[in-house]
Amino acid sequence: MTAPDSIRRDVLFDFDRAARIGLPESVFCQGKSFEAVGALLRKFARGSGHPILFTRLAPDVFERMPQDVREGIDYHAPSRTAWGETLPARAGGRVAIVSAGTSDGAVAWEAGRTLTYLGVEHTMFEDCGVAGLWRLIDRVSAINTHDVVIVVAGMDAALASVMGGLTAKPLLAVPTSVGYGVALGGESALHSMLASCAPGVSVFNIDNGYGAACAAARIMGALCR
Amino acid sequence: MTAPDSIRRDVLFDFDRAARIGLPESVFCQGKSFEAVGALLRKFARGSGHPILFTRLAPDVFERMPQDVREGIDYHAPSRTAWGETLPARAGGRVAIVSAGTSDGAVAWEAGRTLTYLGVEHTMFEDCGVAGLWRLIDRVSAINTHDVVIVVAGMDAALASVMGGLTAKPLLAVPTSVGYGVALGGESALHSMLASCAPGVSVFNIDNGYGAACAAARIMGALCR
Amino acid sequence: MTAPDSIRRDVLFDFDRAARIGLPESVFCQGKSFEAVGALLRKFARGSGHPILFTRLAPDVFERMPQDVREGIDYHAPSRTAWGETLPARAGGRVAIVSAGTSDGAVAWEAGRTLTYLGVEHTMFEDCGVAGLWRLIDRVSAINTHDVVIVVAGMDAALASVMGGLTAKPLLAVPTSVGYGVALGGESALHSMLASCAPGVSVFNIDNGYGAACAAARIMGALCR
Amino acid sequence: MTAPDSIRRDVLFDFDRAARIGLPESVFCQGKSFEAVGALLRKFARGSGHPILFTRLAPDVFERMPQDVREGIDYHAPSRTAWGETLPARAGGRVAIVSAGTSDGAVAWEAGRTLTYLGVEHTMFEDCGVAGLWRLIDRVSAINTHDVVIVVAGMDAALASVMGGLTAKPLLAVPTSVGYGVALGGESALHSMLASCAPGVSVFNIDNGYGAACAAARIMGALCR
Amino acid sequence: MTAPDSIRRDVLFDFDRAARIGLPESVFCQGKSFEAVGALLRKFARGSGHPILFTRLAPDVFERMPQDVREGIDYHAPSRTAWGETLPARAGGRVAIVSAGTSDGAVAWEAGRTLTYLGVEHTMFEDCGVAGLWRLIDRVSAINTHDVVIVVAGMDAALASVMGGLTAKPLLAVPTSVGYGVALGGESALHSMLASCAPGVSVFNIDNGYGAACAAARIMGALCR
Amino acid sequence: MTAPDSIRRDVLFDFDRAARIGLPESVFCQGKSFEAVGALLRKFARGSGHPILFTRLAPDVFERMPQDVREGIDYHAPSRTAWGETLPARAGGRVAIVSAGTSDGAVAWEAGRTLTYLGVEHTMFEDCGVAGLWRLIDRVSAINTHDVVIVVAGMDAALASVMGGLTAKPLLAVPTSVGYGVALGGESALHSMLASCAPGVSVFNIDNGYGAACAAARIMGALCR
Amino acid sequence: MTAPDSIRRDVLFDFDRAARIGLPESVFCQGKSFEAVGALLRKFARGSGHPILFTRLAPDVFERMPQDVREGIDYHAPSRTAWGETLPARAGGRVAIVSAGTSDGAVAWEAGRTLTYLGVEHTMFEDCGVAGLWRLIDRVSAINTHDVVIVVAGMDAALASVMGGLTAKPLLAVPTSVGYGVALGGESALHSMLASCAPGVSVFNIDNGYGAACAAARIMGALCR
Amino acid sequence: MTAPDSIRRDVLFDFDRAARIGLPESVFCQGKSFEAVGALLRKFARGSGHPILFTRLAPDVFERMPQDVREGIDYHAPSRTAWGETLPARAGGRVAIVSAGTSDGAVAWEAGRTLTYLGVEHTMFEDCGVAGLWRLIDRVSAINTHDVVIVVAGMDAALASVMGGLTAKPLLAVPTSVGYGVALGGESALHSMLASCAPGVSVFNIDNGYGAACAAARIMGALCR
Repeated sequence: MTAPDSIRRDVLFDFDRAARIGLPESVFCQGKSFEAVGALLRKFARGSGHPILFTRLAPDVFERMPQDVREGIDYHAPSRTAWGETLPARAGGRVAIVSAGTSDGAVAWEAGRTLTYLGVEHTMFEDCGVAGLWRLIDRVSAINTHDVVIVVAGMDAALASVMGGLTAKPLLAVPTSVGYGVALGGESALHSMLASCAPGVSVFNIDNGYGAACAAARIMGALCR
Repeated sequence: MTAPDSIRRDVLFDFDRAARIGLPESVFCQGKSFEAVGALLRKFARGSGHPILFTRLAPDVFERMPQDVREGIDYHAPSRTAWGETLPARAGGRVAIVSAGTSDGAVAWEAGRTLTYLGVEHTMFEDCGVAGLWRLIDRVSAINTHDVVIVVAGMDAALASVMGGLTAKPLLAVPTSVGYGVALGGESALHSMLASCAPGVSVFNIDNGYGAACAAARIMGALCR
Repeated sequence: MTAPDSIRRDVLFDFDRAARIGLPESVFCQGKSFEAVGALLRKFARGSGHPILFTRLAPDVFERMPQDVREGIDYHAPSRTAWGETLPARAGGRVAIVSAGTSDGAVAWEAGRTLTYLGVEHTMFEDCGVAGLWRLIDRVSAINTHDVVIVVAGMDAALASVMGGLTAKPLLAVPTSVGYGVALGGESALHSMLASCAPGVSVFNIDNGYGAACAAARIMGALCR
Repeated sequence: MTAPDSIRRDVLFDFDRAARIGLPESVFCQGKSFEAVGALLRKFARGSGHPILFTRLAPDVFERMPQDVREGIDYHAPSRTAWGETLPARAGGRVAIVSAGTSDGAVAWEAGRTLTYLGVEHTMFEDCGVAGLWRLIDRVSAINTHDVVIVVAGMDAALASVMGGLTAKPLLAVPTSVGYGVALGGESALHSMLASCAPGVSVFNIDNGYGAACAAARIMGALCR
Repeated sequence: MTAPDSIRRDVLFDFDRAARIGLPESVFCQGKSFEAVGALLRKFARGSGHPILFTRLAPDVFERMPQDVREGIDYHAPSRTAWGETLPARAGGRVAIVSAGTSDGAVAWEAGRTLTYLGVEHTMFEDCGVAGLWRLIDRVSAINTHDVVIVVAGMDAALASVMGGLTAKPLLAVPTSVGYGVALGGESALHSMLASCAPGVSVFNIDNGYGAACAAARIMGALCR
Repeated sequence: MTAPDSIRRDVLFDFDRAARIGLPESVFCQGKSFEAVGALLRKFARGSGHPILFTRLAPDVFERMPQDVREGIDYHAPSRTAWGETLPARAGGRVAIVSAGTSDGAVAWEAGRTLTYLGVEHTMFEDCGVAGLWRLIDRVSAINTHDVVIVVAGMDAALASVMGGLTAKPLLAVPTSVGYGVALGGESALHSMLASCAPGVSVFNIDNGYGAACAAARIMGALCR
Repeated sequence: MTAPDSIRRDVLFDFDRAARIGLPESVFCQGKSFEAVGALLRKFARGSGHPILFTRLAPDVFERMPQDVREGIDYHAPSRTAWGETLPARAGGRVAIVSAGTSDGAVAWEAGRTLTYLGVEHTMFEDCGVAGLWRLIDRVSAINTHDVVIVVAGMDAALASVMGGLTAKPLLAVPTSVGYGVALGGESALHSMLASCAPGVSVFNIDNGYGAACAAARIMGALCR
Repeated sequence: MTAPDSIRRDVLFDFDRAARIGLPESVFCQGKSFEAVGALLRKFARGSGHPILFTRLAPDVFERMPQDVREGIDYHAPSRTAWGETLPARAGGRVAIVSAGTSDGAVAWEAGRTLTYLGVEHTMFEDCGVAGLWRLIDRVSAINTHDVVIVVAGMDAALASVMGGLTAKPLLAVPTSVGYGVALGGESALHSMLASCAPGVSVFNIDNGYGAACAAARIMGALCR
């Protein structure tokens, strides 16, 4: 019988994943112990040769890490992402990230940072909420010079449907948990995007900027055959 | 003790309601027995002197009514509404009813017919869904010549938010139960409208075109002091 | 590619909004960083010439702001609202705000303060919950001297239906998240208001006093043609 | 092993129940086979000596029963209840059944017929919905001459809270599944009653007029010690 | 216009309530400001002549009150209830409070303390969860010497159904928010009680021990005519 | 490209499954076309050498099958199950199926028939609902002579918890969709079983008698090593 | 005022949509009147020059259409899709459609037919449910020769996660409403796909095979620059 | 009347439970007061002769216990379990615990520790999530040498279905509350497991590792007749 009190916790990493699906395994920090996250940050620090992305790494957790751990890591507080090393830049397409309001920033930047890590070029278009439609209309042409569009929006998530009617590009929509009342938690935004009247809008889990970036990378891989 | 087997069912009408709140009582037919609805249609037929609105009166129910009942009633199948007599026309404002898709028609016309019954002038603007944004943009000026705007939309209900950013008028939003999957039943549209990023959007129960028309009439009453 | 680590976050304000829809853009503080809120409070302080409303600004956040920021702002703790400057008073109608219980005060006052900011006259009627019906009945005449009625209630939200049967005025209902058990979060109050047996009751998102005030201002705009 | 194909289905009746809890077992017909219901109707027909109540017995099912079965049973279509024999009248208290609208009648009458079956005196007060408050106010004195009050209401169920503030009697509230949109299924009414701002309101399952009548009988039993 | 910044908050108490419905108004402390609660505790302290019950008054809030406030109040931490004075003892019936597990204690004691405040005699029967059925069976006779039974249970709330089959007394069931996973928040217990297979079980909001006690007092009032 | 209009639909059966997991693949008929079900019934009729179980085969569907198809199949209407051939009897353990009410019969018999098909001996104990506790208590000894206990119950599903406190055997609980109001659909029963206060109760999907029988067979396989 | 009784219903088609977003408008037939669908089928029949896709056109509706309408249309019953003319074949990529079970066929074929209509080459891989893992493993290499993978699955939707770990291609996941109990309606499958442990899985509304095909076409458009 | 202010809280332990159902009563610490938990830990410390399991005992709670209490207890922080004494080892079967990801560890170890306490041998197989299918496939043979398999997984919980198709052993599935967005709280994982396409998968409440271990012990008891 395994002795539960003397656990030797070596996480069984799926190092092979990048070769198989083009995307390496990443570390979702929320819910992991301080010690476990610290050990992984040290293991995959700058110079490790293993480019691993850390997501949902809260600023107050990172700041409590020992100085040597922090120095080996490129940390970005607004998106709560970190890495020691990134993947090499991919030739090919560019991604536009279009977000509705300031409060959607954390998720939009999680998508942006994940793309940087994956070596995919991208541009941010923030504050495009449809209550001031001109903010989006003025930038549609610029957005359409990109190859994939990621839309990040909470509350009514109307931006996804409007954008879906203004671009022929692959459109990846990420609902955010921004809001209060019926918007709280992001389910309204999620359902709004899934029920979008614009055809061919792909949807991701609430606040899952990381997932949309991975999906964009899958498309980039297909683009660059 | 009341003898349950010999019920004398005279509905206790709130005839006084119009004087009190400016809106007479109406009859919601769904769920009432065929006999009960028939008796009320006969009672409030053309010439009765009591203008009563019937809502949710399904076409197949109305068609099974005796000929004399049908002849005394102005029935409109798409909106499932009926009346014997209408209220006198109200001076003053006009209402624009803006709907997203063909399938939202039943609810949009319930609002329209209720306004006609209440004596309020209105115009229909159909097929304004935001997936083809030009359909709405082309008509914004015309819509803004009205005093109140009713928006009727299902699925993502993005039309409410976009319209909310394009008009200064009172905006009444009615979600519809159109759709499938997460849209089914209209909850997604309802939540989307309640969480709208446009300020000051009033919302009604799912498929409640009648309610929005009554709210418009309340505003008209205030307008025409 | 945009460098994610050197973000220059100038929020793209929709300054044009007031001209377009009669309501300027406001700042929803909850979920924004302390620094971002502080910068905006300083930018739109007394004397800025830009009347901007801040909502959901928690007392403990405001108290931590530097003294000069606090001095330039008119802050109201119970409603969590703030502004540097208000809009000019609007001629015309008056709004009655009717709330059920003491715990609904924060939302009622959010509506009240928003109206003050928008230049709309209003009166508060508190503690009108229907469990003590006389508290409402005694004040119905006074309420009906106003042009628009906002009802704020949580739990069973029965006040909205009762009020709806006692006034002919436009009736705007705001559910609150007050309560516990099935009332928790405000969904019961929201559904109760949407399913109200009184005709023409407009409903807003849970705790959205701000939205009801904006809708009242839209009606005032229509009133004062 | 029990041979599944040759089932001898003698329902194991809890005949002892009346002695134990003062309420005999009843038969919930919905979901039972036509044959099973028919057999039980015949078994507990007039003269059987076993007073058994049948609930949720749809009119179209009862009408398809053989003539001899129908003749042995006292059937009441609006409430979908039936019995061969009733229990002896109980001395003591009287129950007031107060319902909001015509559509709540089926449930109100299920409560009424169950009381008749249990030998408890009662009076019906229908059409007391709060949108026309005078209809209730006019009858409060009459209602308060009873010992227990059952309120039956759907949609916003505001009647329960208003009644709760106007009577000192035990108050039993039954939500109904009347309505559409968010009211559909009765959950809004149920939650509204559970979250009532009036103290001491007891609540039952949606459409469960039978349950409220049984609870009233339990109270009557306590009353008549 | 009411000046929002200079609020004179005198709560409009429904002092008349006890005369009307036999139950005085109480103060639900959760969500009220520290200052507001403190002022009310002082106002209704021992010797005030106004017996007012305070519910959901958290221990850490009470402990932070000034000493003179605390000394004028009878506070009970497990049930989070407080009062300055109680109502006179009522002649007549006794209530049994039967709870399933230790964790249901806070709610069971809220019911108990409310009964004490209302002047109603009662007995507690704790740890009667059905997983150890003998714990309940051994005490059924004792429970049945009371006039009303309150059952308090979380999780599966099976105790309500079992008790419902073992007593003829009025049975008031309070679901608790005890548990985790699907039990979290008490909705499973609530639904289980509403759908109970035992006839005539009355149900209250989650954790609403106060409500069940008020309902018991309503029955006592009827008992003691 | 596959021509969608000329589909050759040979279902890819997992014939190997029995060898791998001890349970052969079965056919869930609901939602399949009449033709598809008919073809499979013919293919796996008596004498086919392939014992395949059909579940959710509605009586009206089976009755419309050609006579030769019906004659090759052992069909059982109450449980909606069918087979051409069964698996050989397994040595070893016996299963007790304990159900709460008559309406749970369809699910209880689906479990029973599946066990017969799988060659597992079992006994039915019906009408054991806890509202009449003696019905269960009288049979506990008999139930405990079996090796595995399956409990089938809807509504409050209290039977699962009570049984769980009265047996040491593996306990498999199947919620049923019997009921109305909050019980409708079986979610209340499901949650009640998952949150059971009795330890070690295994739960299955709503109405999934088939699944519980398969789990019992898995245990029998372990028993009979 | 628009006369509601004399509606001239010419749907305002967004013919321009194909130029703008690469996807023409389609007609969702469910919920539209028989007459409206018939008129559109006739208008866009073979030879019309307008390739329009009809979705959710139920077999029993199509069969009731006049013969001349049926003859002008290519109808496919299993997928409930129809068209008069298709778009020209697109050069470039190929799509693999991988479905879990027979019951997912209607949705899988809706995706397939939509791709055929859009001129995109594809292959069907059916019966790949993970309960018989070899069925998927045997075909992974063949699937990976395609450029985009659409996964269609109901119930637990585990196929999406497993496939996501076995391919580097863009992965589009469509949940289906197949199942019963907690699976009913497809929400379990939807949530399972959104919460997939495999990175970069795009998700669509329940049963929305059409949407996934449109998203695949958006990717094809990007591929074939 | 019981004096509520002088509570003598001796929990009524069901010491007899082990004899009756083979599983002793345990203490669920979450929600209990610090003092109550401390008293029980002292009562059932090493040497007490009563082997009692404590679950959900948070590390920060345990660390605040007096030193003598801590020294008498075997505490395991990752699983939040504790005991003074364990039950004697049971002869017979072995259990495999298979978990998907690192974050599922707390629940997996709760199952493991409970088995150790119950005297049942087991082995842990961690990091078997299906996104890297080889991690599971490599260990299937080892897993299948055990007699019962417990699967612990959150998010999509696809591991349960895949494992269910690879083993003939009794399969007990525990969903975890790991994740965010739609996965938050574990409902997605729970529903995915209940709707599993693999036959005979038993499911437990979210995070209920304890329950699965008890069910495994029930099976072991049956095995070792």
